[in-house]
Amino acid sequence: MTRLASEDDFLAAIDRHFTNAHSHLCVGRGDDCAVIACPPRMAVSTDLFNEHSHFRTSYFRPGDIGHKALAVNISDLAACGARPLGFSLALAAPADLSREFCDEMLAAMAALAREHDMALSGGDLTRGDALSLCLTVWGGPAPRSAHAGIMAGGGPEGGESGATVAAGGSESTGGQSHPATGGSSPFLRRGGCQPGDHLFLVGRVGLARVGLLALESMGPEAARLYPEACRAHLRPRPQVAAGLALAAICGTGDARIALMDVSDGLARDLPRLIGADRGSGLGAELAMDPETLPDEVRAYALANDLDPVDMAFTGGEDYALLGCCRPAMFDAVRAAVPGLIPLGQVSADGVVLVNGDLPASVGFDHFSG
Amino acid sequence: MTRLASEDDFLAAIDRHFTNAHSHLCVGRGDDCAVIACPPRMAVSTDLFNEHSHFRTSYFRPGDIGHKALAVNISDLAACGARPLGFSLALAAPADLSREFCDEMLAAMAALAREHDMALSGGDLTRGDALSLCLTVWGGPAPRSAHAGIMAGGGPEGGESGATVAAGGSESTGGQSHPATGGSSPFLRRGGCQPGDHLFLVGRVGLARVGLLALESMGPEAARLYPEACRAHLRPRPQVAAGLALAAICGTGDARIALMDVSDGLARDLPRLIGADRGSGLGAELAMDPETLPDEVRAYALANDLDPVDMAFTGGEDYALLGCCRPAMFDAVRAAVPGLIPLGQVSADGVVLVNGDLPASVGFDHFSG
Repeated sequence: MTRLASEDDFLAAIDRHFTNAHSHLCVGRGDDCAVIACPPRMAVSTDLFNEHSHFRTSYFRPGDIGHKALAVNISDLAACGARPLGFSLALAAPADLSREFCDEMLAAMAALAREHDMALSGGDLTRGDALSLCLTVWGGPAPRSAHAGIMAGGGPEGGESGATVAAGGSESTGGQSHPATGGSSPFLRRGGCQPGDHLFLVGRVGLARVGLLALESMGPEAARLYPEACRAHLRPRPQVAAGLALAAICGTGDARIALMDVSDGLARDLPRLIGADRGSGLGAELAMDPETLPDEVRAYALANDLDPVDMAFTGGEDYALLGCCRPAMFDAVRAAVPGLIPLGQVSADGVVLVNGDLPASVGFDHFSG
Repeated sequence: MTRLASEDDFLAAIDRHFTNAHSHLCVGRGDDCAVIACPPRMAVSTDLFNEHSHFRTSYFRPGDIGHKALAVNISDLAACGARPLGFSLALAAPADLSREFCDEMLAAMAALAREHDMALSGGDLTRGDALSLCLTVWGGPAPRSAHAGIMAGGGPEGGESGATVAAGGSESTGGQSHPATGGSSPFLRRGGCQPGDHLFLVGRVGLARVGLLALESMGPEAARLYPEACRAHLRPRPQVAAGLALAAICGTGDARIALMDVSDGLARDLPRLIGADRGSGLGAELAMDPETLPDEVRAYALANDLDPVDMAFTGGEDYALLGCCRPAMFDAVRAAVPGLIPLGQVSADGVVLVNGDLPASVGFDHFSG
């Protein structure tokens, strides 16, 4: 193993894995700033991915770390129906980080970036006791279709899409305005839900939690017993195509769609979608049939005397999309995203019920947990 | 002292210090992504500011940490002649971080953000053994003046400036094209220098290094002996107005201006400006009169048997701007930025000389150092 000796070594590794000539980069890496080509509105998000807090090197391979650090950030763009454009990477790394570790980590990150045609605009490097990755991602609007339901499967691709949104001055709507697509924003948001609205999921929930628990107790061997769950935890797949497809059919008023990604588990994230954490007074009645849960969630629950529905409700880090729309919109939503899972309905009584009962558990707070 | 107990506590602190309704924020904090209003081209940069690597809490007060973490990032925008627009903040914090510490840190960061009318778009929080701040900043083009030399002092302010640059598709020029303002970029860059070009500084160099050395050996008491140097180290002032003024008079061809910020010291950064680290074959002949160096640099050198010119040449973290222009452009450059310091000329021989001699020292590598 060769020790990564200097900043120049690291920059050379970056250049081996990420192209510095990209349609989104007017000026690539190597100057004080990169210069990026922007649509009139961009969605931006920042997520840390840190050793001990978010991963352990005892069962995360370097490629898993590189993949997941970017995937959890892309998931925030997917949750807004944004098309990924670029990202920056800041890395704090122990002095003994090897060149091979760094190469494997960057190769997997670069593979995911290529899949979404994202440019790496630059970043920073410093030493740290533990490995820490801080990514900021940004994305542009999805192309819009004129009619609901015509987008299906893989979602829209290609072309500058900024032309469909107003290019004028920058109005402020603050953080509180409620239409799922704000007046000047072409992206999907949380909130704007009403009693009777349909709730839905894109992607499975509970699997990544099973993967985490199995990996924590068994280490890498867990992948033999729970391959799908371990993969969900180590290599989550952000639901970009579904987010774009939903953004493409989303309108205003009763055609709005509320959307977020489930990073902290349904138990914590559902109240955020429906605004219950901001006093909306809304609740939900969820129908989660244990028979329809992933096989490995049911197997793990059975083997460990746990309730599979509770695992699916509280388990985090699946990076599924959680959405909400008016009943009249639901057929178009289902047509736009094959495989979408109905989850229940919004209620007026401020309580979340799962299969008619109050759930036992709440989710995870990274800071107090 | 009250312990910062949860993510919600931290988010509340953020909201106390940073407005969430801002002309640059179409959708503020609180969703999966923020939505920002963008000019057609933006300059972006990311810098870590980490305990142990970049600061010590033994002599950095919380406000110094908050200020400097943002200042070093804004300096990268200044180095491109960009107008700051917004930033994201990711924080890893020890479990015992107090509410008071957090408030002081954010208050100073917010004061600097207000000074430059920057929006905080969002970020992330997690636990860590040491305090770590990762910021990504972005900015838009400076307004352009038709004639050289009309901008002076405080630099241009206000107004959307994107209208003066092409709003078309996104051309790729890669990272290698050399005009100081790339074909599709309204920002200043490194490189494009020729023998005979004038080199200049905006801001002092050496002071922050004196501050660091004095604080490391004396702790906070150092501020009695070396107040200006300690302030330069703890509270650097990014040269935004000068960067904007230079961008406003910069043209193409012989009207170009190369610019960067001096974060690692002249010894390491000057070769980067003139492309000597990328095989330009250029050198420089610097004239640094010890009599013109800051009093505290000379006093510290005298007291510690050091060479003041060597300290000014190698010392980092001053966040001065280092620039280069054709001789015919230099009068306009001086008129645009009062107080600008001539530094010497670019030479053809690939060697950097300081007052006729080869310098003894090179700068600092955060990773190998």
